[in-house]
Amino acid sequence: MRNLYHEKLSELAEQLGRLCGLAGSEMERATRALLRADMSSAEQVINDHDRMVALCARAEESAVTLLALQQPVAGELRSIVSWIQITSDLDRMDALAVHVAKIARLRHPDHVLPIEIEGLFTEIGRVAVKLANRAQEVVLTPTPDKAACLREQDDEMDELHRRLFSVLLDPHWQGGIESAIDVTLCGRYYERFCDHAVSVARRVIYLVTGERVESVEA
Amino acid sequence: MRNLYHEKLSELAEQLGRLCGLAGSEMERATRALLRADMSSAEQVINDHDRMVALCARAEESAVTLLALQQPVAGELRSIVSWIQITSDLDRMDALAVHVAKIARLRHPDHVLPIEIEGLFTEIGRVAVKLANRAQEVVLTPTPDKAACLREQDDEMDELHRRLFSVLLDPHWQGGIESAIDVTLCGRYYERFCDHAVSVARRVIYLVTGERVESVEA
Repeated sequence: MRNLYHEKLSELAEQLGRLCGLAGSEMERATRALLRADMSSAEQVINDHDRMVALCARAEESAVTLLALQQPVAGELRSIVSWIQITSDLDRMDALAVHVAKIARLRHPDHVLPIEIEGLFTEIGRVAVKLANRAQEVVLTPTPDKAACLREQDDEMDELHRRLFSVLLDPHWQGGIESAIDVTLCGRYYERFCDHAVSVARRVIYLVTGERVESVEA
Repeated sequence: MRNLYHEKLSELAEQLGRLCGLAGSEMERATRALLRADMSSAEQVINDHDRMVALCARAEESAVTLLALQQPVAGELRSIVSWIQITSDLDRMDALAVHVAKIARLRHPDHVLPIEIEGLFTEIGRVAVKLANRAQEVVLTPTPDKAACLREQDDEMDELHRRLFSVLLDPHWQGGIESAIDVTLCGRYYERFCDHAVSVARRVIYLVTGERVESVEA
């Protein structure tokens, strides 16, 4: 019974690791849609959403089944609850990629981003995907040194986000109000995507090492 | 043992009902801070945050303890997992009220909102608080008829959000880019606050009646 339990637990970690990777790929695709006004990438992210929701729900069910399989002791119980919460983070990460894709679709064939801000969003997209991949690594092989690395990358995203606002508020901003709204919302979606990726990793590291990694957002 | 279980379950519902009410009060206070550039309201919301986080964590612990108390059968297990997820919604609702309060604090002594948009945010704030209170009622006394009522109020919020964008995009908008960014972010915070309130109610109604209330956001 214990062996079955540990086997199921490691299957669950693999399931969630795959979902981190998928959320990262969807955000990569959404970024492509945004940067290139690429309708087919946007459509793909939006169409994939139902599948991602189903996969997250299936992962959640696996975790609940683990709870039902046997009465886990205190630490294990807490751990399974954390895995359940991670499925919610992953579900949200995909929803945020969908939001980015929907803005790209809404403005198509126009580009959402004025040319002067494309480089910044290339960076923002790169960091977001990197964080999703880092979360995947943590889920699959959790080690304490990865916590510091995650914090650094999240700081990188905060810095990019600050630069975004300084571009928007620069008197030379030519994009007008509609574009400023789109850019503000996209910035917020990427920021939240990263918060969730960090949250996934934070929960896993805490489970494995007992080291509490500080929350990323008030 | 079963009696103890049901007693603890109803204590948990009361705990979460109180938290819905508190989240509503914090958003009411944050709205006051926003509409009146009222620094002391803003500070109070921000300072209360740690307490709200602790209360949500305590509610989560109560739910986990319920899991540990006895091996619940399938339906009950699912139900406790939902209660755990509700604590995350409540935690986020308070974080979103804090975001609104922080924008008010950042711009103080200036007003965040241009005068022409104050009436709209009065409405948005009212609907947000109403939804939190409705979620509280559902948590404390869940009945199926409340699902339809929640959907209506969420539609009301969507309509207000649409009006917000049409004001921002009106050629007569005088607020400039900085104000448009603030208004866009505040709009998003209220919208997400309402999504979480609806999500709380949706989960409870599903638990009690088996009626799946559609998700509010892709």
